[in-house]
Amino acid sequence: MNSFEPLDKNYEKKIKESFSRQPFMDFINAKLVEVKPGYCEIHLAYKKDLCQQHGYFHAGIIGTIADNCGGYAAFSLMPAKASVLTVEYKINFVAPGDGELLVGRATVIKPGRTLTICDTKVIVVKNGIEKLCATSLMTIMTMHGKADTPLLIQK
Amino acid sequence: MNSFEPLDKNYEKKIKESFSRQPFMDFINAKLVEVKPGYCEIHLAYKKDLCQQHGYFHAGIIGTIADNCGGYAAFSLMPAKASVLTVEYKINFVAPGDGELLVGRATVIKPGRTLTICDTKVIVVKNGIEKLCATSLMTIMTMHGKADTPLLIQK
Amino acid sequence: MNSFEPLDKNYEKKIKESFSRQPFMDFINAKLVEVKPGYCEIHLAYKKDLCQQHGYFHAGIIGTIADNCGGYAAFSLMPAKASVLTVEYKINFVAPGDGELLVGRATVIKPGRTLTICDTKVIVVKNGIEKLCATSLMTIMTMHGKADTPLLIQK
Amino acid sequence: MNSFEPLDKNYEKKIKESFSRQPFMDFINAKLVEVKPGYCEIHLAYKKDLCQQHGYFHAGIIGTIADNCGGYAAFSLMPAKASVLTVEYKINFVAPGDGELLVGRATVIKPGRTLTICDTKVIVVKNGIEKLCATSLMTIMTMHGKADTPLLIQK
Repeated sequence: MNSFEPLDKNYEKKIKESFSRQPFMDFINAKLVEVKPGYCEIHLAYKKDLCQQHGYFHAGIIGTIADNCGGYAAFSLMPAKASVLTVEYKINFVAPGDGELLVGRATVIKPGRTLTICDTKVIVVKNGIEKLCATSLMTIMTMHGKADTPLLIQK
Repeated sequence: MNSFEPLDKNYEKKIKESFSRQPFMDFINAKLVEVKPGYCEIHLAYKKDLCQQHGYFHAGIIGTIADNCGGYAAFSLMPAKASVLTVEYKINFVAPGDGELLVGRATVIKPGRTLTICDTKVIVVKNGIEKLCATSLMTIMTMHGKADTPLLIQK
Repeated sequence: MNSFEPLDKNYEKKIKESFSRQPFMDFINAKLVEVKPGYCEIHLAYKKDLCQQHGYFHAGIIGTIADNCGGYAAFSLMPAKASVLTVEYKINFVAPGDGELLVGRATVIKPGRTLTICDTKVIVVKNGIEKLCATSLMTIMTMHGKADTPLLIQK
Repeated sequence: MNSFEPLDKNYEKKIKESFSRQPFMDFINAKLVEVKPGYCEIHLAYKKDLCQQHGYFHAGIIGTIADNCGGYAAFSLMPAKASVLTVEYKINFVAPGDGELLVGRATVIKPGRTLTICDTKVIVVKNGIEKLCATSLMTIMTMHGKADTPLLIQK
């Protein structure tokens, strides 16, 4: 893993606050577990509400965890007055989301002034054993000069 | 749009039942609006629970709609005794999910015995006006011989 | 297909000159056949040199045609003082490159100040009959203020 | 990197022969440098013929190296009587192809009976210094029962 120097010393607080302003993360009960420069980890406990027709985590939920992890891994390297935008991602599902916990781990491959590229793995944990569930490659954009403002102000 | 002949005359019933067995679709209140051979349309009304930090539909939710639409568009062309598996997808977000409704529209580009390729557009509707929100390209696998069985039996 | 207004009236001449400065296009003998605002078409005649182990057009060649088409479709909508950069693409191969001609057709889905999204189809023509060979979704970046300068000056 | 057990003890010979039957690899003068179970490395020396308009390796060439590497990394884990098919790939270009050598390094992330997922990095080497040029995520299909037969027999 690369070692990155954050442009915003306050990156961890900034990301935790941004995460806590995402109603969807609260709705599914996802937890921001770790943030480091160029790295983010999110956990999501199983509940039936999050499943597809076979009782496994829904692909959309797996994609959600990948997307959010990648976005915040990139955000950790952005300057203070910027917000984060997912341009696109590609995700391969390599095993069913069969387990008690999803763990998303995103790593910045290449930071850039405008675009940052992240690799995100989503792991499914069953009876405490980790298994790769999905792997994702993602492009994230820095929106310079647009702070990640609170929901109540924006809407 | 191509015209496809379904292998399973019962495809519409099969897809409606499969959709109704996805707890996550019920949790977010998504609606299966239309299924035709090689086509699927899903609607999702806005609620704050489904949003990111700026009050727009979360990218994970947009990806979920794209994934589910594409999967069922492909499923509509599969034989009776088969289930559907998302291999991978790529999605570009081209406008914020800012509106009262998300509409996913998936079209099969190329059906195949093992793999089917779908193009899915996700539209956001604001004050009744449609705007392209995301575009996705997806690979779906036919699991021959494995029927899309009910959740209660499987788990 | 959308109708786009080019920012640079000179777009066709600019693209033809840029294409003619790509040594790789000359090396494989690709032809720029049509450019319109938000659209580009490139043709490539079969020769054995361009093939994989089964005598079909190599996937790398099919990807090359998709990439170049998409880049120039996007470039057609960029301002005069800008150059074009491929951020990323995803390509699905849906039929072998078995035929006498490859035809790439790129259409801009969403132009943007910084990023433009293109859909590119690569068709293979065999005995005069067209067949979809590959479909691609691509993100292209406008490099403002950097003209697409000649090779001899740059290197 | 994972450690994989090849199903075909003869995998190295098989891949070298397959590579040598690709006219396009000969045309651009690419070299198969290393094959291990679940790993493949290909090198390509700079020549002007392989460039885009700024004198750098063409994105299509970079994609070609990624595609070929990934395909053979996957092929190394396939059974003896099988051939390899690229289903799709996604590639992000993170730095210009500015250097004297391209190096593709593909690693299998997840092998499977039908589908194998590879991560491929393409490195550009300038004055002996390596720099990440592109990163790719790829889906490859095993065509069981179809040996990778010589070109002269097939056509």
